[in-house]
Formats: sequence, C-alpha cells, structure tokens
Amino acid sequence: MPHASRNALYAQSGGPTAVINASAAGVILAARRSRGRIARMYAARDGIVGALTEDLIDTSRESLRSIERLAEQPGAAFGTCRYKLKGIDESRAQYQRLIEVFRAHDIGYFFYNGGNDSQDTAWKISQVAARTGYPLVCIGVPKTVDNDLPHTDCCPGFGSAAKYLATSIREAGLDVESMARTSTRVFVMEVMGRNAGWLAAATGLASESDGDAPHMILFPEIAFDARSFIQRVRALVERKGFCVIAASEGLRDSRGSLLAESDAKDSFGHPQLGGLAPKLAASVQAELKYKVHWSVPDYLQRSARHLASGIDLEQAFKLGEAAVRLALAGRTAVMPTIERLADAPYRWKIGCVALSSVANKERRLPRNFITRDGWHITAACRRYLAPLVQGESPPSFKGGLPVPLRLRNAPVARRLGTEFTP
Amino acid sequence: MPHASRNALYAQSGGPTAVINASAAGVILAARRSRGRIARMYAARDGIVGALTEDLIDTSRESLRSIERLAEQPGAAFGTCRYKLKGIDESRAQYQRLIEVFRAHDIGYFFYNGGNDSQDTAWKISQVAARTGYPLVCIGVPKTVDNDLPHTDCCPGFGSAAKYLATSIREAGLDVESMARTSTRVFVMEVMGRNAGWLAAATGLASESDGDAPHMILFPEIAFDARSFIQRVRALVERKGFCVIAASEGLRDSRGSLLAESDAKDSFGHPQLGGLAPKLAASVQAELKYKVHWSVPDYLQRSARHLASGIDLEQAFKLGEAAVRLALAGRTAVMPTIERLADAPYRWKIGCVALSSVANKERRLPRNFITRDGWHITAACRRYLAPLVQGESPPSFKGGLPVPLRLRNAPVARRLGTEFTP
Repeated sequence: MPHASRNALYAQSGGPTAVINASAAGVILAARRSRGRIARMYAARDGIVGALTEDLIDTSRESLRSIERLAEQPGAAFGTCRYKLKGIDESRAQYQRLIEVFRAHDIGYFFYNGGNDSQDTAWKISQVAARTGYPLVCIGVPKTVDNDLPHTDCCPGFGSAAKYLATSIREAGLDVESMARTSTRVFVMEVMGRNAGWLAAATGLASESDGDAPHMILFPEIAFDARSFIQRVRALVERKGFCVIAASEGLRDSRGSLLAESDAKDSFGHPQLGGLAPKLAASVQAELKYKVHWSVPDYLQRSARHLASGIDLEQAFKLGEAAVRLALAGRTAVMPTIERLADAPYRWKIGCVALSSVANKERRLPRNFITRDGWHITAACRRYLAPLVQGESPPSFKGGLPVPLRLRNAPVARRLGTEFTP
Repeated sequence: MPHASRNALYAQSGGPTAVINASAAGVILAARRSRGRIARMYAARDGIVGALTEDLIDTSRESLRSIERLAEQPGAAFGTCRYKLKGIDESRAQYQRLIEVFRAHDIGYFFYNGGNDSQDTAWKISQVAARTGYPLVCIGVPKTVDNDLPHTDCCPGFGSAAKYLATSIREAGLDVESMARTSTRVFVMEVMGRNAGWLAAATGLASESDGDAPHMILFPEIAFDARSFIQRVRALVERKGFCVIAASEGLRDSRGSLLAESDAKDSFGHPQLGGLAPKLAASVQAELKYKVHWSVPDYLQRSARHLASGIDLEQAFKLGEAAVRLALAGRTAVMPTIERLADAPYRWKIGCVALSSVANKERRLPRNFITRDGWHITAACRRYLAPLVQGESPPSFKGGLPVPLRLRNAPVARRLGTEFTP
C-alpha cells in the first residue's frame, strides 16, 4: 500500500431521510478523530454517480461546526441518486471504473449509506475489489424510511418519518373530528413505505384510545378488498361520526396489482400520476356520499427534520460512527445494525451483519403486528414502534424557519483523464 | 336586565386552525377573571349548530389547567361547523331560535370565532337581537388560515399554516435538490387559501437566496396560463437542475374557471376529487418528460400545532382576551383586530372594527406583493410575512407524540322543551 493512512469515500444513496445527514456527520467526525488511519474523507457528489464520474467532494474543507450542523439538515447534503448497479458481469464497466477512481484517489475505505439496493451494491463493490486485488474496506450504513432492511431492529430515517406521520394524523384527526357533524366525515392520508407497511403501522401510534385517529390502516401486506373497505368505512362513520384512514402507497388488490397505478386521464388527456388517496377518497364519496378529504404528504414525510425523532437521530449518528469503527477494526463487507435489548425503557446497542445477508432482502410487517381483522396494529406492534419515535430534537430556527446549511462541497481535483458516462 | 351578571356563549366556526383553541382559551380565561360581570361561560357544541339545537357546554366545569392547555391543541375543542345563516328575512326561524336559546340561558354575551361568513352571522345576530329588544353583546373573534379578512393586519391561524408550509417546502426542496440529477426534477406542493394567495405567498419565505425552493408560486390572483407555466418550468429545470412549485388550490385560468375542478374519472368510473397538484404534475410529466412528485398536505397544514408560530399563538390568545374586554367595555357588533406598528422589529397592537365592515368581504393578495412576472413574491410581501411565522411554541410531547387533551365538554341542562332542526 502506498500510504499507511489512506483516504475514505462516503456516498449517500436512494431517497433522502430527515436524518441521513446525521449518519454523514457520524462518519465524518469519526474519521476526523482517526486521522492517523484515515487521511481525507471524501464524499461522492450525487451518490455513486459521483464516484463513477470522479466527481468527489473534499469534506475536510468543511468546518467542524458545519459537520456538526449537518445533523440538522434534511435532504442528502452531498447529493444522492437512484442508480442501481446490476450484477458484476452485467455492469462490469461500472465496477471497473469505480476501482479505477478509488485507485486514483487512494480510497482505502468506502462507506455506502443507503437501503436494500445500496447494500447490494456495496457488497458487489467489495467482491470486485477483492477479485481485482485492490485493497478496499467496504462498509454499509443503513438508511431507509421504509424500515425494510433485514437483520437490524430498525432503519435510520424510519423513526422520524413515523413520528411525523403519527403526529400529523393525530393533529388532522382532531381537525376532522371537530367538524364532522356538518362537514368532512372521512379523511384519507397516504403514506410511503413501498411494499412494507411499517410507515402505515406507525400512524397507529396516534390511536391510544377508542375513537382516536387513525380508525383504519390499509397495509400493503393485506390484500385490499374494495367492498369490505367501504363497509368498514360506513360502519365506522355510523359509530363514531367520522373516520380517519391511513393508506399505504403500496396497497395491492387480491390479484397483487397496485391500486395506485391509475389509468385515469385528466381533462388534457394526460394520465393522472399515482395518488392512492384521491382514488380511495373518490370511491368513498361515490359509494357512501360522505364528504371526503385526502392528504398526500409525499416527500414532506421523509424530509420533516423539524419533527425528527430524537432516538432516530441518535441512532443515525452512531451508526455512522460505528461504520468507521468497524472499518478501522479490519472488518469489511459488513453493515452496523441496531440490536434491541429492551422495549421499555428502551435499550439498544450496535450490532453488525454481513452485507451478503442484507443485500436485496426486504423485511415486511410481520402478520402478528396487524390485528386479526387486518385493519389496525396490535399491542406487539405498538411495543416495537413506541421507542422509535421518542424524543424531540428540533433544528435551529431563525426568523421562524429552520436554518438552511450550505456546505462548501469543494471538489477534489480530478486525476483521471478519462470521462465516464454512467 | 334580570341579573347584574349574565352568561356568555362562545362558538367556533368554519375550518379549525392550529391556534383557534388559543383564542378559546383567551376568551374563557378573560371571562373567568370577570366573574362579577360574566356568570358562566358556555360553548356551543359544533358551532352555531349547537346554539340552534340548545346543545351547550359548560366550560366552567373544565379545570384551569385544561383551559390553559387548550392552546396546545389543534382542531376545534368544542366542535365547529360549516353552516351559513342566510339573510335575516330568509333565515328568520334560525335567528328567532337563537334568540330563544339565548334568552332561555340568559346569554348576555356572544363571542363568535370564525372567518368572513361567521363575522357576517355575528353581525346579523346583533341586528336581530336589537330589533327584538333582547339585550345582547355580539363580538367577533377573527380566525382563518386563508388570511382573507379585511381591516386586520393578519388573521389568527394564518401565521402557523404559513410557518408549516414555508418549513415544509424548504425541507422538501432540499430533498428534491439532493437527488434531482437522477430522479425527481419537479415537485409541486398544493396549498390552501381559497381565492386568496396568502398561503401560497407564505411558501416564498423559504426562498432566501437564488436557487432556494420554491422557485415558482402559482397564485389565485394571477390567471394560470398552461403554456407559459410549462415554459417556465423547463427554463428553471434547465437553469437549476430542478424546480419546486407551490400552487394555490384556488388557481384559475383566464376564463376564471378553477383548475382543480377535475372532470377525470378513475378506473371505477368515479370522478377524481379535487387535487390541483396531481393535475399540474401530470401536465409537466406529459409535456417535459421530467420525473415529477407532488404533495397535497390538505388538513395537515391547518392543524400542524406542532409547528405553530409563536406570534400567531400569542395573537390568537390576545384577540380572545380582547373580545371579552370589548364586551365588558360596552362595545357590540365589533371584532378585535391586529394593527401593525412596525415590521422589524415587529410591533403590533389590538385594534377594533365594526362587524358590518368585515362581513362577507375578502382580502386578496395585493398586486405589489407579487413580482411583476407573476411567479414569486416581492420584498414588500416578505416584509409583511416575515414577522408572522416567528417564534416556536411546540406543545407538550409524551412518548414522542403531542399530548392529546380531552375536555369534559359537560352539557348544560336544556331549558327549552322544543327541538329544532337546523
């Protein structure tokens, strides 16, 4: 090896979360404390695309204060991407290019902060490096609001989105309840989560006693049946006067088709984009003639740093630090995880899992977290979820709004003469 | 008059806001301090409908702590309604019934907390009482997230929704910006406000320097032209790499037709409900082939007590107190208002206006608050808006969520033998 101390590269991947930058801060600060081993910490601009195009950022140009404040900032501070590397043979040129860029910048450590796909990519990069004989430590850092990574008790980003959604449905539920007698009877809020019902389930935390919103949760794990849905809504409105519903974007019918895939056209003849909530709302209004409102928070739920969960922030940061610790301990192709020790009071520690066993696997909501009738969460689910939304840790406000942070994001001088189109 | 000290009735009207209960707390606490003049403070259950049906709540049964904590609670704590009384001759039976209920419960003071329509109703009730010879003091308490009441610098509820929307679009803007290179290029957030662009304008506060979201604001005051919209989006994406748009639900085309009135049908043949944002998103995607996401926060924006503006909360409470002060000073058919004394540092005082000059008037965004090109807000608009979102005053949290308050809402024994169907 050319140097005793080598450079490191950190990259963000996939959809941002309210706390992905807390993981970045954890990685960067831990690396700064290990200067004898890690020379410079670079970040790839716009995720792996930046690594492929040799578009690197020198994080050592940022002040300590900026890196600490990173944890207050939503979005992905160095940029992220949706770009999936395929199999090693299929995407040979990409993997070779990555090793070439790593070699040019003496990258000895690669930290990849993302979800299922990204852990798969990190694993493959570690394999390619090993085959090529390029010494590289590859560590995954978990991240996803969908909470669908296996072998970790939870995923950074989830707790904050969960807290935002549970708070929002509680607040909107009080609003709907207070005017249901003469106005809106049914309110549908659509939540993210892809094929996993974790975020849908999280809204259930808002319902502590009978009558509290949400009264119904539609999980992607339970096949949607339009008729029993309408019957249930009618029964709830007749009993309580109103009905608040959380619906997962990944809802599927009994044939496995996504409900949100709309074939509707607007007046310009354009297809309507996504939007399960307006579809459910329209069916309730048509069938039951109740006044209906709906909400699709969309990106608001994953970027709501103003309402981040304190626990989630802490775990995101500590997983970033742990990734560096694992790297320096000589581990590779692993990802630090959260291991739960106790529900209440909540206790947890950092664990570790091989990337090969995380890659491309999806953890869905277990059946015993959903009530037998399929419409709500169980006590076991509440015990699991409750600790993850705890603690408030608002960002700094100025003039009434969260203070935006602009990093320098100073580029690292290119060393390769070649361009690469990812 | 039968008693030196008479009872009072407080009623909430129209859509709730994050701070309407702070006004309720102001009214109730001020009345409690004036026990020699105001005997009992009642609240109408579900707004004026409760007054018509003699469905009254005795707020003196609530603890001081509960009334103080009211200000932490979104929704309308005593219930509200959408129910508009028409002209005095047209709705004679309703007005007569109100006076009958007031007489039965010795209501000497009526406090009506609402927007344009409600101030109109309060004014008419005062006229009917005067004609009937029933001694009644009628005071309006302003409230509306739409900020469209005239003769007051701003309306309680607006500042909090404004803070929520400006924060949300800043957060989501950072999210979109960070992955625009390979993913979503255009993000559309739909905001409330009916025919007035105040809430749309408020999102503009998030854009402090060039490049910050939102890059475009669609105001109901500016006729929407599909072609220049698409051209502008293309230019912004080409220049900045992405484009974040705030769109007012009340957007109209050059013929004055609402854009959100959709004639689209879903796959069940149901009409799609409202939703301007998905419509704009579909047109951008069809015309420009960019990946587009959209958000419709809907009720979340008016119930987001967790992010209420400190100034808004304070004004809502003090306007409630001022209403009682005006009543006890012998004023009637008036509404306390906010008068601005200075922009920065912000200074304001309570003013007062006759209900007759508020009723049914709508204050829209002045043209000099919108840039000449029609796509953003001016410096004058910023100076107006900036103070209104200032200050954070989060509610109490427990287990990671805002603590819900359940009032007793104890009924007042009925005194009239007659039923009334509003």
